[in-house]
Amino acid sequence: MLIVPERDIADLMTREAAFAAVEKVFAAMASGDASNFPVVREALGHEDALYGFKGGFDRAGLTLGLKAGGYWPNNLERRGLINHQSTVFLFDPDTGKVSAMVGGNLLTALRTAAASSVSIRHLARPDAKVLGMVGAGHQATFQLRAALEQRDFEKVIGWNYHPEMLPNIEKVAAEAGVPFEAVELSGMTEADVIITITSAFSPSLMADHVSSGTHLACMGTDTKGKQEVEASLLARATVFADEVAQSISIGEAQHAITGGQITEADVTQIGDVINGTHPGRSSDDEITLFDGTGVGLQDLAVAAAVVDLAVQKGLAIEVDF
Amino acid sequence: MLIVPERDIADLMTREAAFAAVEKVFAAMASGDASNFPVVREALGHEDALYGFKGGFDRAGLTLGLKAGGYWPNNLERRGLINHQSTVFLFDPDTGKVSAMVGGNLLTALRTAAASSVSIRHLARPDAKVLGMVGAGHQATFQLRAALEQRDFEKVIGWNYHPEMLPNIEKVAAEAGVPFEAVELSGMTEADVIITITSAFSPSLMADHVSSGTHLACMGTDTKGKQEVEASLLARATVFADEVAQSISIGEAQHAITGGQITEADVTQIGDVINGTHPGRSSDDEITLFDGTGVGLQDLAVAAAVVDLAVQKGLAIEVDF
Repeated sequence: MLIVPERDIADLMTREAAFAAVEKVFAAMASGDASNFPVVREALGHEDALYGFKGGFDRAGLTLGLKAGGYWPNNLERRGLINHQSTVFLFDPDTGKVSAMVGGNLLTALRTAAASSVSIRHLARPDAKVLGMVGAGHQATFQLRAALEQRDFEKVIGWNYHPEMLPNIEKVAAEAGVPFEAVELSGMTEADVIITITSAFSPSLMADHVSSGTHLACMGTDTKGKQEVEASLLARATVFADEVAQSISIGEAQHAITGGQITEADVTQIGDVINGTHPGRSSDDEITLFDGTGVGLQDLAVAAAVVDLAVQKGLAIEVDF
Repeated sequence: MLIVPERDIADLMTREAAFAAVEKVFAAMASGDASNFPVVREALGHEDALYGFKGGFDRAGLTLGLKAGGYWPNNLERRGLINHQSTVFLFDPDTGKVSAMVGGNLLTALRTAAASSVSIRHLARPDAKVLGMVGAGHQATFQLRAALEQRDFEKVIGWNYHPEMLPNIEKVAAEAGVPFEAVELSGMTEADVIITITSAFSPSLMADHVSSGTHLACMGTDTKGKQEVEASLLARATVFADEVAQSISIGEAQHAITGGQITEADVTQIGDVINGTHPGRSSDDEITLFDGTGVGLQDLAVAAAVVDLAVQKGLAIEVDF
């Protein structure tokens, strides 16, 4: 079996490879070739940690396995380790034997960024010029870097609950040669694409902060109770998701569903757009909203891609297991 | 992180270490220090395989992780591999980082054998002389070998649906210097301890095949629909289980529960007996029945034990992950 340690991922994995892997597996999910398994997520009662497993099987790509790990909130302060810790394990679907172990920390950031980028490629207006960022933490830098490759953006505008964090994303915009401007949430009406990437339990982005024709990628809500945008926005928008079941239960759509503003039938898998079985955006005035909840198959897809890259470059550690 | 490949388990792990690890974690489950996570089990629609995860956390032993793998029914015939394939992954509960990867195939056999042995140690009559085996497949040899160490058995009697398999267990009895006799199921009335280890969807061992004072360890039922013993036996017996929730849903107790012959309150965690909070057997006439369904914490416990042994003997492979 092959091992790709966390330290090698940065040199091996590219945003392009992550985008291709995530787009492909979203397509496989929509065509019925790939499915995610039930998610296990447990509070350990130790170190305030949340731990669990996200698994799945892609029959088309023959990728089987799981990501295991979670959130250890004291890691950084007490041990100088990042708080999100995860590892991906791949299995040979022909035999059930473990085939690879891959560091999952950077991959998780890259696959999450790839998901909003896939949504921008397939749902944003081709002439989108202004990219709005709601959230400016560590993950926001990944989302922004990947999003900037999808359209000829001329400006990035950003808001964060703690404005002192905005330089995080300003720096990324500068590296891409795109001007950055800090705005109030009401200023987001200028944006053609908005990515929300916060961890909040009440909405920050309200319906009147969003103009017609905008594409929204809501990437921060992955748990019951979390919320980034006003529920009425989902009623006003055409809603897409990585996985409908997660979107309506733990994703951004949960609130519009429980409030009766939309139903499950109003949420479309983005894979249907990728596969061409759903037309996607139908007009320049339409608001499209992608609810990115994060599925195990995304993790498996990027892990399988990085294993291939590691083998090509002779960097995979082989263990006779 | 440390790796202990499948090939090293046989030389490292002992029945004594497996017994100690399983007994200890059953005790921790009963005292509330250890809990199993929800089990994921999926039919892949590929190679007729069943795949899934059994995880848990033992706060007392600080053992966290999962066993991943499943059943690949074509492995032996098509590839010369065993059909059950599993791998155990351990995590550092202080940080969420993966700490060990351990071959899970032989460990699964040993932990299953240890479970019935723990039940025999704590529930069989001290003067038990005749050990009955219902089932004579590969796993039955493990159950028998471990069980023979728990009492001064003077005879092993065995039944199997395919009698030509009985030499499997006759050989184990001979190695232990204990005479073996093939019997009809009605002959099981002679046994003081009976282990059932079959994979069946209707009962073979009926109530009138079991004498008063017998201890039964039902080890074969781990899925909805499977059944080894007549449900009325559970009503007649004092019922114990590794985990009550599994016992009444996917274990041998499921049928007596749905038939209304017993209720959940009639099933006691064996850890309560180990901890002394339940008296266990109350008389020489009582039938005790242990429903061994197999929990993830057993796998983690034996895996953690074998990692310790591998480190002691310098056999653990260290990978800078």
